[in-house]
This record gives sequence, structure tokens and C-alpha cells, in this order.
Amino acid sequence: MQFFSDNAAPVHPAVLAAIARADSVDTAYDGDALSRSLDARLSDLFGAPATALWVTTGTAANALALAALCPPTGAVLCHESAHINVDEGGAPEFYTHGAKLMTLGGDGGKIDPAAIAARIDGLRDDVHQVPARAISITQATESGRVYTPDEVAAIGALARARGLGLHMDGARFANAVARLGCTPGALTVEAGVDALSFGFVKNGGLMAELLVLFRPELGGETRRRLKRGGHLMSKGRYAAASILALLDDDLWLANARVANAAAARIGQAAGTRLASPVEANEVFVRLTAPEAATLRDKGFGFYDWGAGVARFVTAWNADGDAVAALAAAIEAL
Amino acid sequence: MQFFSDNAAPVHPAVLAAIARADSVDTAYDGDALSRSLDARLSDLFGAPATALWVTTGTAANALALAALCPPTGAVLCHESAHINVDEGGAPEFYTHGAKLMTLGGDGGKIDPAAIAARIDGLRDDVHQVPARAISITQATESGRVYTPDEVAAIGALARARGLGLHMDGARFANAVARLGCTPGALTVEAGVDALSFGFVKNGGLMAELLVLFRPELGGETRRRLKRGGHLMSKGRYAAASILALLDDDLWLANARVANAAAARIGQAAGTRLASPVEANEVFVRLTAPEAATLRDKGFGFYDWGAGVARFVTAWNADGDAVAALAAAIEAL
Amino acid sequence: MQFFSDNAAPVHPAVLAAIARADSVDTAYDGDALSRSLDARLSDLFGAPATALWVTTGTAANALALAALCPPTGAVLCHESAHINVDEGGAPEFYTHGAKLMTLGGDGGKIDPAAIAARIDGLRDDVHQVPARAISITQATESGRVYTPDEVAAIGALARARGLGLHMDGARFANAVARLGCTPGALTVEAGVDALSFGFVKNGGLMAELLVLFRPELGGETRRRLKRGGHLMSKGRYAAASILALLDDDLWLANARVANAAAARIGQAAGTRLASPVEANEVFVRLTAPEAATLRDKGFGFYDWGAGVARFVTAWNADGDAVAALAAAIEAL
Amino acid sequence: MQFFSDNAAPVHPAVLAAIARADSVDTAYDGDALSRSLDARLSDLFGAPATALWVTTGTAANALALAALCPPTGAVLCHESAHINVDEGGAPEFYTHGAKLMTLGGDGGKIDPAAIAARIDGLRDDVHQVPARAISITQATESGRVYTPDEVAAIGALARARGLGLHMDGARFANAVARLGCTPGALTVEAGVDALSFGFVKNGGLMAELLVLFRPELGGETRRRLKRGGHLMSKGRYAAASILALLDDDLWLANARVANAAAARIGQAAGTRLASPVEANEVFVRLTAPEAATLRDKGFGFYDWGAGVARFVTAWNADGDAVAALAAAIEAL
Repeated sequence: MQFFSDNAAPVHPAVLAAIARADSVDTAYDGDALSRSLDARLSDLFGAPATALWVTTGTAANALALAALCPPTGAVLCHESAHINVDEGGAPEFYTHGAKLMTLGGDGGKIDPAAIAARIDGLRDDVHQVPARAISITQATESGRVYTPDEVAAIGALARARGLGLHMDGARFANAVARLGCTPGALTVEAGVDALSFGFVKNGGLMAELLVLFRPELGGETRRRLKRGGHLMSKGRYAAASILALLDDDLWLANARVANAAAARIGQAAGTRLASPVEANEVFVRLTAPEAATLRDKGFGFYDWGAGVARFVTAWNADGDAVAALAAAIEAL
Repeated sequence: MQFFSDNAAPVHPAVLAAIARADSVDTAYDGDALSRSLDARLSDLFGAPATALWVTTGTAANALALAALCPPTGAVLCHESAHINVDEGGAPEFYTHGAKLMTLGGDGGKIDPAAIAARIDGLRDDVHQVPARAISITQATESGRVYTPDEVAAIGALARARGLGLHMDGARFANAVARLGCTPGALTVEAGVDALSFGFVKNGGLMAELLVLFRPELGGETRRRLKRGGHLMSKGRYAAASILALLDDDLWLANARVANAAAARIGQAAGTRLASPVEANEVFVRLTAPEAATLRDKGFGFYDWGAGVARFVTAWNADGDAVAALAAAIEAL
Repeated sequence: MQFFSDNAAPVHPAVLAAIARADSVDTAYDGDALSRSLDARLSDLFGAPATALWVTTGTAANALALAALCPPTGAVLCHESAHINVDEGGAPEFYTHGAKLMTLGGDGGKIDPAAIAARIDGLRDDVHQVPARAISITQATESGRVYTPDEVAAIGALARARGLGLHMDGARFANAVARLGCTPGALTVEAGVDALSFGFVKNGGLMAELLVLFRPELGGETRRRLKRGGHLMSKGRYAAASILALLDDDLWLANARVANAAAARIGQAAGTRLASPVEANEVFVRLTAPEAATLRDKGFGFYDWGAGVARFVTAWNADGDAVAALAAAIEAL
Repeated sequence: MQFFSDNAAPVHPAVLAAIARADSVDTAYDGDALSRSLDARLSDLFGAPATALWVTTGTAANALALAALCPPTGAVLCHESAHINVDEGGAPEFYTHGAKLMTLGGDGGKIDPAAIAARIDGLRDDVHQVPARAISITQATESGRVYTPDEVAAIGALARARGLGLHMDGARFANAVARLGCTPGALTVEAGVDALSFGFVKNGGLMAELLVLFRPELGGETRRRLKRGGHLMSKGRYAAASILALLDDDLWLANARVANAAAARIGQAAGTRLASPVEANEVFVRLTAPEAATLRDKGFGFYDWGAGVARFVTAWNADGDAVAALAAAIEAL
């Protein structure tokens, strides 16, 4: 009964089956038909021309996206809790060759246009200060919250007005789309997002995430940076297959709905203990140390998340019985 | 009947089976038991303390190894045809933050101690010139040749004497060991190699290569660089499983022997047409354009490799009939 | 009657005279006797072995110092208002190859050991988070405050205990020493400082600042980085001469005392208008917009420094009459 | 009687006088009138719109120029003996964030269009290989040779046709212009040069070289990189003054003519001993070790330049008697 991380979940059977089906002699790197189908497939999904590149990790997707949008001399505005700022070992700085991350606060891990605008306005336009060149938002956020299409569009409009690129770290993009019931395009390209890190591994995938670029002119240089970062796998067709399996029949959305429903059930049990509203597949619950110990004694695995808060994460493989047991255990505290 | 590249070969069934066996809830990143077993497993294989890190590509393994051995202000000596110099999109320069690759000539893609020493002696010891800090050799070379343990040891001794690190790009290390019949340790750590890129993907693997460090003190910083490069996969246990499957029962060597035997058979057929002796799993054959066309008409796939030379690569899945057919077709030219 | 910046002040006549004296054929770069005398000269001044390198700007000195103390995978702790963070165009990130600046608050631009320790304690020791590797403090701070030797020593002790390097940005080091009346060594090497950016240009110099390293083992690689950054001037002897002229007979201290005395006089006039205590050569005065306009109408030049505050900077060439006039004008508001 | 290097020469009196004239309170960095006059002054000199930035060294000028013309993922084609390749401590790799220098041979340190085209044609257009993005030529070359306007124009035409930038390292640009008798524009912007490192320090200057960009759109980002490299001096007005003094009344050309004439005189004496034609201010003379010793015994200072060759460099301060004495001594060998 593990609720540590969606990274710890197993791989969806459809992914393993697709990998097995891809197992034949084929063109190396990304010259195979599966890899080459991604652009069209994602353009179709998002309803706009898209360049889609598989990469081995979400960190790589994020760092390559930021490198595409921000020069070494620029800065990326993001929330202070953003994964790119606190949990990627400096990958954004590495891939951008030393661009700065300028952090903002904001409830629920979300940044808003007014705070972004104020930060930009506070910078002098001279060579002594590093200019803002891009904005990065996380969907769903590190606090399990989602940006609505309107909220993204407001940030997108600001980005356009100020000449900044807009990146969405969508490690849990599927959970956000499942929650909002909107189209993937409404939450991204139509709202002004230039580059999306589209997460699959937390959602049943195996070895590949997608970097989706909505500005075709960024593709060529990004592919070179991807290779330069050592991310062009020799047998890329298996990576493509692992992603396509989750796109087929909207399995990615079905998986996310399972995870979201499980989180909602746990959140319902937590009630007033919730430290943050449950909008995706993460549940932040206020627990005293003895309460946390009680749950662990009953066999539930989860991480502490700061003082007096525990984080429970659900995934595509959420087991109804385990979720019900956890809900009951929380209610019984 | 494809002889384009060992990268194009399928994945060995034992690897897919191991991935399926690993398919359960487990610790994320490299905290799982499979990943954590690698150090001991490789230390045992090489007969010396080793830090072993899975990475997603050989390019990443090479670039991280060079970054561990050479500071941004230094140079890496390598053969002018080295994969790190001509086919990795600048990854070594990226991961080393701009170290220089200083290239040397040498028959069969091999560099020798005298040439290395002469190059170092030609550098002034001042801040105007970039000092040599590491040497990188390829095993087997880009021309399909192997360094013997004695040859590696001679370079290793020079590296020690001059205070340089020694890296071995072992994309086809298995083929070299299979050819030489020596122990893996004799060809590396005992001969002075500090870091080995141990290739698995060309030899039946799927999504992971190994970076093996024989200097434990390099491990901590290299793990940080690995993460910073976006190479720490969320579900690393599958990567570890894919490698362990090839190490079990020396499957990696058995696979390499199949590939080498196939190459030897083709080389035998090529006879005086050989542009380079066949010592691993690559065969370079002199062919006129009409001759190459003849072979292609018969259904054989392969790359041209410079003017008048074709490259045929065999892999773990070499099909005896296809190899025999190719041999016959070459003999019939 | 300009109080914009000490960077705007002219060059001290002794510096121009020294440059004229150095004007003869000599060894290029830093092979001349003047350049080579710096190590001994600064070791003597600081009472400890020092490696002293002239560089062309304070930004270069700071960035090289940080690169010497912090690897690309690490972080530098500094005050959020630190010049390295807000006014050097990303030079620290450039020279460190993408290390992070982790900022702290603190009154008067000063950071204290408790805040530093809390920040370090809040970082997990894994590859996902960037570890703190160095601390940088500014002397005098961006708010015109000074760290006492005891305050520096407390930070130095913490740095040692945590294995971090300690850098002092001493763009106005002379003003701090003049203020405190201590020895240069007591404020640096004896207090645990590893690298000092010793400013001369704001204090009467022309084209060179000093980077003083108190850990000799950092010298070799730093000299290579200096050259690699394009900072090894062909005619370095003039740069060395420009610094030595200010060291002779403690002219650097005499100059700083003039500037400090002028600032003190202005501060006295400002009285309760002071936004920050005057401890060096900067005076921050609360002024309404009409008041600022009144002063400007009288011919005084100065910068606004945030809402309702004006900054007045004095230098070695402070003119008694102009200072008295400004003091009177402030008092008359 | 030193012929070691033009870097060792003193500063021209007009430069010191100009620095003294600039010695007053003024705007910091490059906001002063002298610095701001450079664009117009150089545009006038070259007969085309130019952005002119003073930098502290020729290495910085070169590295910034290459960073302006070549992305991190690209390569710069240059002669194997180019200063950027062998004597700048890796500054080009640092400022370009790891771009590659791809070297070519060529008599007299010159590269020709056919060799450049062949190198480009040998690169595959895929992400595995680093694409050529810029060409850098040296004027005068490391062997003391000059490119004629036609030769530069041929390379410029090739650069345009292939979409590459063209940089000229003009550390001895003055000597080349003096030799050729052409306009500065004919040798640069009219011939397709995009960025020129215009050397002043070897020609009587003190602390500043010029980076001249003939593509105005490169100026903004280059100024940011310049600051980020730590090259924006606080008292930049003195740097600007030092350059303007040499531009006034074409003093830069007069100085170069003196140096060239001295070199020509020595070259005439060397006769058949010349290892390379004398076209600027460097003379390469074949000398046996005893012959070199003989000259040194007579008080002449110079560097050995490879086996059996000595290099004599003349400068703006060439002393007629010393030159005559050297010429006589060489003739007497």
C-alpha cells in the first residue's frame, strides 16, 4: 500500500506490449517510423503544428525546453517551489549555459500574472541585470493544484506582451487535463504555451517523456541540443512505442482519471486535514507525528512533506482496496 | 538482411524478460535493489572496486566520463576518428564545459603512446595553451580494431606518468573482450583505465549503458553531473534490469561472440578486399560503386564508409543464413 | 557636485604617475617584475601566504573567486541584494558554468550564520538538490554596512564546519578596513575568508582590481580560468603598477578615509532621514520626490535607490566644499 | 634591443596623454561620451554601420566575436595555427559554451576557400555531427602573412553562400592595412567580414582592444556577453580614450608603418634565410642554434619558433639603430 510517488508505480501492460511489438530490426536513433510519427500524432492531439521529441527524463525535457526559450544571458521566471528550481540538480542551468531562475511566491505553487509583471518591471533594462526571457509553470503544480485554461491564457498573454517564452512543466499534465476536462490544446498552445514537457513515465510509461514544441522553428536547434545532452537513444523506436501506447485510445487520460479518482477519495477522507485542495493525483494531509506513525504502522507508505504535512501520491495502478483502506485509516485518526 | 548497424538490432529476449520481471512497485530513480547492486556486480566482474552508473546512451557515458577526468580548462587526447570527436554532436564539449579534444592520427583508429607523448611534449606549460588532462581510446575502434591488454597498459602507464586520466569508450567492449579472450579487468582497470563506457545497447540491450568508474572518488560528483544532464530515469530499476540480464551468465560475451563470428565469416569472404583487419564485429570492404549496387540489389543493407569502402556490422542476432548469403555474394563479385 | 558613484571618480594622480613610470619595454602578460611582485606584497599586507592576480574588473574578480570555490554542480549562498546576484549580468553563473546563487535576506545587506545554517539544513543531501558549496559576503555591503571581524569569523567558522568556501566581495574593502581600524588580515584570512575581491578602481585605481586567494592550491587553475576569460592583459605591467601605486604608503587606506569622512558628514546632516547607518562611503537618505528635485536643482547629482530613498556615494576625491554644500542643502530641506 | 613581441613594447605617448585628458569625473562603465562616440567613429572609418565595443584583451574580442557568430552546437573553421586555437587558453570554447574549433592547414597560416568548402562538404547534415557555423581568419597571420582584399572576399563569398559567419582576428590588422594600402573597409565589411577584432595594444595601445561588429543586430546580445564575461570596466572612458588616441590622425597606421618598415629591413637582411615572406611586422628567420646564440650574445632578444627558426617582432617604437644593428648581425652570420 505505497503512496510514495507515481514514479514508483509499475509500467502499464500496454506499454510493455508495445515495446515487445517494436522488437525487430529497424532504423537506429529516431529514424524509425514510430519516432517519425510523433510530430503528426501530437499535432493532431493538440490541434496545432507541433514538434514532438522523446527524451529520457522529465528533467531533460524541462531543461531542453528552457534552453530553447532562454539564452544564457537571460532569466526564467518560475515559482520558488518549481521542480526545475529545487529538484533537478541544476539541469536548467546546465542546458541553458547558466541562465538564472528568478523565483516568485504564490499560493498552491501557482504564479500569477501580476506577480510576474511586477518582477519584470523591477528589472532595469541594462547589461548589469539579467533580463527575463521565459516563464515556466508547472501543471499540475508541486502542491497538486491545476492552472485553468484561462489562468494559463492570462500568463500566455503576458508572455507575448513582454516578448517572453512560456514553458509548461507537464510532468502531471495528464492529471490536469483529466481534472479540467478541457482539450490538451486549450491548456497549452491555444493559451500561449510555447513548449510543453508532456509526462508519461509517472502515468504508466517506461523510459521516455515527450518534449512538445509549438514553435516549429525551435525544433532544429533543440534536436541538436538533445543529441549533445546524450539523449538520442540508439534504439529510439522502443521509446516512441512506449509513448504511442499511452496515446492510443487516450490511455493516458484513462490512467490519469484512475489516479485522480483515488486522490479525490483520499482527499475526501482527509477533509479539514487537507493542506491544499486536491485537484490532481497528490494529497497533502496535515498529520501529527503520532498520526503519521499510526498510518505507517498500518502499512501505508508515504513521504513527510515539511512540518506536520504528509504527501500521498496515487497513480494509474491505484488499487481500490488500498485506497479505501487508507481513506478509512485517515478518517479513523 | 541488414548490416547497417548493431544499433538497429532488436533487443535480446532475456532483456525484455528481465524488464517484465522488474515490473512492480519499487523505489524511484536509482534507489531500487537492482540499481544498487551494480557496484558490487561490476566490482566482481572487473576484480577491483568499481562505481557503476547506468545512463541512457553511450554518448552520455562518454561525456560524463570525460567530465570526470578533464576540467573545463583541459584537453582530451583522442584519435581523429573517435566517436567522441565526430559523432556525438559536441556532447564531450558540453559536459566538460568546453574542454578541447586534441586529435591524433594512427592506423586502424588506434593511437599509440609515442604519438600521445609527442603531442603532450609539444605543448608549452603556460596558461596560453590548453593542457592535456585525459586520454580517450575506443575499444573496439571505429575501424573495428582492438587494443590488446599490453597496448592499453602502455597507454595507461603513459597516462599515469603524465598525470592524465584514461577513458575507454567501450561501445563495443564486449566484442573486444570476446576477441581477446582476456578478462574484462585485464583490458581496463589493470591496464590503467580510470573510466569505462561499457556498451550494452549495441549488444542486445535496450535503454541503458554503463559508466564504470575505477576511481571511487569520482563517483559522487559524477552522479550529480548525471542528474544534471537529465539522465537519472524515474524508473531506473528497468534500466538496471536490462543491464543485469546481459551480465547474467555472461550473456554479453556470448552475444559478442555471435557477432564477431559473423563478422569473421564475412571478412574471410572479403579477403583482399578488406580495408581493415576484422577483429570485432565490423567489416570494412573495398567495393566499387557497381559492386555495392550489386549487393544492394540482392537485398543486403549497409552503409558506404568513405570513397570505395562499405561497412558491414553484425550483431548478437546475426543470422547464419544471411551471413552465409552475404559472404557468398561478396565472393561472387 | 556629483555623488552618483565612486566608479565615476577620476584616477588618483599617483596611479597615473606609476603607469607613466612603467612605460618601457618589458615582458608581456604577467611575466614582468611588477606583476610578479604582487604575491609577496599581498602576503605581507595580509600576514599570510596569498596568491594575488590582477583582473580587469570587480565582476571578473568575483566570478573567478566563485569559480574557484564552487563547482558547476554547487550553489553559492549570498544576500539577495548582493552585487553578484543583481548587477553582474550573470557573470557568476558564466564562470562557474551554471552554479546556482541561493539568496538569503538580512538587514543592511548582511547575512548571518543562523540564516546560512538554516538554508543549508533545509537542503536534502541527494543529487536532486544542488548542494551549497560556498558563501559570498560583501564588504562593505550594498547598503553601506560593514561586517566586523567577529561577524566575518562567525561566518568563516560555519563555512569551515560545513565544508564551504568563503568569498568576500571587497569592492569597498578599503572603506571597511578604514572604518573598522583593523588589519586587512583580521577581516579576511584570519576570519576564514578563502578568496577576496580587493577593489581598487572605486578607490582611485584605473584598470585593475585584485583577486587575492588565501588558499595557494587554488592559484593554478584560477590563472587558467582568468586567461580563458580573456582577462590576461598583454601589457599587464601597467595594471600591476596601477595597483601597487595604491598599496604604496597605504594610499588605499588614506583614500578610503577621505571618502568615509565625507559620507559621515553627509550622514550627520541627514540625521533621522538616514535609511541605513553610514559605515563606509555610501549614504542612503529618505527624500520625497520634491526634496530630491530641490537637491538636483541645486546641482547635486545622485541616484534614486528604490521608493523614497536616494543614494549618495563619496570617493577618494571628495571635495570638502561640495560635501559641506550638500550637507547644508540636506539640512535645509 | 628586444624583438620578442609587440606586446612588450611601451605605450605610445599620445595614448598616455589621452588618458590624462580623460581624467575627470564622468559617467561610469561605457556611458561616457568617449565610449559612446566609438560606433560613429568606426562606422566612419569602415564606411559602413558598425557597432564598436572596447574590451580588455584581444582574446576577449575574439571569443566574443565567435560567440556572436557560432552557437554552442556549432563549429568554427580556422587555421590549425590560429591564435584562437593554440594560444587563448580555451577562451573561444568558454565564450561559445563549447563550440568546436575545426582546423585546416594552409601555407603561411592562411586558409583558402577550397579547403574550407571541402571540410564543410565532408560533414553530414545530421545531429551527430557538429555543423560549421563560422569561419575565422587571422590578419596578419601567425606566420606574418596578409590576406589581400580579394582573398578575404573569396572567403566572404563562401561564408555567405554557406550561411556561415566570418570573423577576422585583426590583432595585427593595422600592419595588414599598412602593408596593403587599401581602406579598412575593403579588407573587412566590403569583403564579407561580420566581426573584426581590431588590435590596438600591440600597436601602441594600453588596456583596450576593439570588437567591431558589422551586423548591428549582434550588438545587443554581445554587450550582455561582454558584461557577463567581466569585461565592462567601471572607468571605461579611459579605455575609449586610449583607442581614440590611436585613431586620431591615423596614428594607428603610422605606427604600423614604422613596425612594418623595420620588419622589412630585417627581412631584407635575412634574404634566403627567411622561413616566410615578410608582409607585416614579424620576421621568421632560419637560424642554427649557434647562430641564434651568436645573435643573443650581441644583445638581441627574440623567441625560438619551432626547430631552426627564430621569430623577430617589430613594433611602433622600432629603433632605427637597433634594427640596423640586427640586420647587420644577421647578414654577418
